[in-house]
Amino acid sequence: MGLYCFGIDVGGTTVKCGLFLTDGTLVEKWEIPTRTENNGSEILPDVAKAIQSKIQERGLQKENIDGVGIGIPGPVNDKGEVPLAVNLHWGFKAVASELSFLTGLPAKAANDANIAALGESWKGAAEGAKNVVLVTLGTGVGGGIIVDGKIVCGHHGAGGEVGHANVNHEETFACNCGNHGCLEQYASATGIARVANEILEDSEENSILRSYTKINAKNVLDAYKEGDKLAIRTMEKVGDILGGALSIFSCVIDPETIVVGGGVSKAGQPLIDCIQKYYKKYAFPSCKDTPIVCASLGNDAGIYGAARMVIKE
Amino acid sequence: MGLYCFGIDVGGTTVKCGLFLTDGTLVEKWEIPTRTENNGSEILPDVAKAIQSKIQERGLQKENIDGVGIGIPGPVNDKGEVPLAVNLHWGFKAVASELSFLTGLPAKAANDANIAALGESWKGAAEGAKNVVLVTLGTGVGGGIIVDGKIVCGHHGAGGEVGHANVNHEETFACNCGNHGCLEQYASATGIARVANEILEDSEENSILRSYTKINAKNVLDAYKEGDKLAIRTMEKVGDILGGALSIFSCVIDPETIVVGGGVSKAGQPLIDCIQKYYKKYAFPSCKDTPIVCASLGNDAGIYGAARMVIKE
Repeated sequence: MGLYCFGIDVGGTTVKCGLFLTDGTLVEKWEIPTRTENNGSEILPDVAKAIQSKIQERGLQKENIDGVGIGIPGPVNDKGEVPLAVNLHWGFKAVASELSFLTGLPAKAANDANIAALGESWKGAAEGAKNVVLVTLGTGVGGGIIVDGKIVCGHHGAGGEVGHANVNHEETFACNCGNHGCLEQYASATGIARVANEILEDSEENSILRSYTKINAKNVLDAYKEGDKLAIRTMEKVGDILGGALSIFSCVIDPETIVVGGGVSKAGQPLIDCIQKYYKKYAFPSCKDTPIVCASLGNDAGIYGAARMVIKE
Repeated sequence: MGLYCFGIDVGGTTVKCGLFLTDGTLVEKWEIPTRTENNGSEILPDVAKAIQSKIQERGLQKENIDGVGIGIPGPVNDKGEVPLAVNLHWGFKAVASELSFLTGLPAKAANDANIAALGESWKGAAEGAKNVVLVTLGTGVGGGIIVDGKIVCGHHGAGGEVGHANVNHEETFACNCGNHGCLEQYASATGIARVANEILEDSEENSILRSYTKINAKNVLDAYKEGDKLAIRTMEKVGDILGGALSIFSCVIDPETIVVGGGVSKAGQPLIDCIQKYYKKYAFPSCKDTPIVCASLGNDAGIYGAARMVIKE
C-alpha cells in the first residue's frame, strides 16, 4: 500500500477532486469545471492535469501514490469502460485506460452512485460494513451495492440501478427509462411531489400543501414533520413503497447496513423512521433489524469511494 | 490447487456426496442417510467417515485434496456457522470448523440453495458467468446469488432468500415465514396450485383443472401447455409476479444469467418463456436481454457448488 491516492467524481458541471492518505484521511479537496464541449473530449485530460499539478505542487513521489479512482455519471463496466454518458456528451470511452495513460498512474472507474456507496461503506454512515445497499433520493433515485467491500457493477454496468426496480405493475405514467412503475417514480424528490399532488387531488381535506403553487419534496417533508394529514398520507405511501423495495433488496444481498442519501435524505430521522416502519413490516425475519441510516459524507461520498477503489491491499 | 475436492449436500433424509477433480470432473457420487436422531449430532461425523473411507478406498493423498465443501438446509454465515437448521434438528453449529476438525481437511459451509447457485455458475446452466441469480421453484422458493464468482451469504446468512421478497403488500394469507405477500406464496409449487385454485373459484369457465380433486403445480403446467384458458391465466399471473421479482433482483446485482431450478422448472421452455415475457416488460432497459435459463445440474448442483467453494485458486 502506498501513502496517497486520488478520488475524482465527475459531475455534469464540476469535477470534484480529492487527495487522500490511504488510511482514509482527506488531505485536500478541490473542484475544476466539467468541459463538455467537443463531446467532452477535454474532461479526462483536464482531470489528468489537475492531478499532475497537485503532484508537483506537493512534491509527491509517484511510487507513493496507489492510483486514481474516478466516478462517472453513467454505466461503467468492470473494465472501467463507459458505453455512453449523456451528461458528459460521451459515447464509448475506456475511462480507466485513458486516465491511466494520461496520468501514468493505475486508474479505476465506476459509476458515480456506486462510488458513493463505497465511500459511505469506507468512511461514512456504514463505516466498516462489508455488504451495503445505498439508495440516493435526489431528482431521480440512484444507488450502489457493496458486496464483500467491493462495488457490484453488474454485467451491463447496471448493478445498483435500484431506482428502476419495478414496484408497481399497474402504473400508467412512464418513467424516464421508458418503463412504468419504477421506484424512482415515487421515492425521488420529483416522485414525492407527484404522489403528494395525486393525494391532494383525490381529497377535499385541508392541507398546508394547498398553499403552494408548485409543491416540491421539501414542502411535503416539512409539512409531514408538522403533522399535516395529507403530507402524512403521502409519506406513508412513499415509505410503504420504498421500505418494501429495500426489503426486497435485503432478500438478495442481506446487507449489514442500508444507507439513504441524496437531497431528500436531508429530512433526516423522521424520513428514516417512516421508511424503517415499512421495511420492518416486509423484510425477511432475520433481516428485520438491519439498520437504515442517513448518508454522512454528503457530496464527498463520491471522492472517498473513488479513492478507496484504487488502494492496494 | 490440489487434484481433488469433496462436495457434500446435506438434505433432510439423505446426504449427497461427491468426489471431484478440481477441474470440475465428477469422479464419483454416492449417498448416505441423514441421521437426525440425538439433535443430528451424528450427521457431521457420518460425513467425515464417508470422506475418510473414500480417501482410503481410492488411496488418495490428503495433500492432494483441496478440502470439503458442505451445503446445509438453513442459514449459514460467512464463517460457516449455522444458528439453526430445523430439518437437521440442529441448534447452533460451527459446521466448517467441526468438519475440518473431523476430517483434517480445510472445510467451508454454505446454505444449500447458495451452493446450488455456485454449482450452476461453475459447471451448469450459467457456466462461466461470474454474476448469477438462481431461483429454485420447489415446495418453497429458494435461491442463491453469485457475485464475482462467490456466494453472497449476507450479514445474517439471508443472502439469496429471494423466495421471501415481498411482492404483494395487499396479501392477506400468511407465508410460512410469518410475512404476507412473499414471492414463494405465488411461484412455488404450492403457490402455483393456490393461485390456480383462486382463479378457478373466481371463474365459471371450463377447465381441465376442474377434473382434479386436488390440483398440483404439474397439473397446472401440463394444462398450460395444452392451452387450457384458466391454466394460462394462472401462469400469466405467476409469470407476471416472478418475472417482475427477477427484474428487481437484476436492478440490484445485474447478473449475467438468471437460472431457474427446482421441481417446477421441469416444465421447461414454456415456463421460461412465460417468465421471460414479464421479466422483459419490467426490467431496466440495459438488463432486458439477460438470459433466463433452466438449471442443468438437477440434484447434483449442490455437490458441484460445495466442491467449488474449497478449490484453491
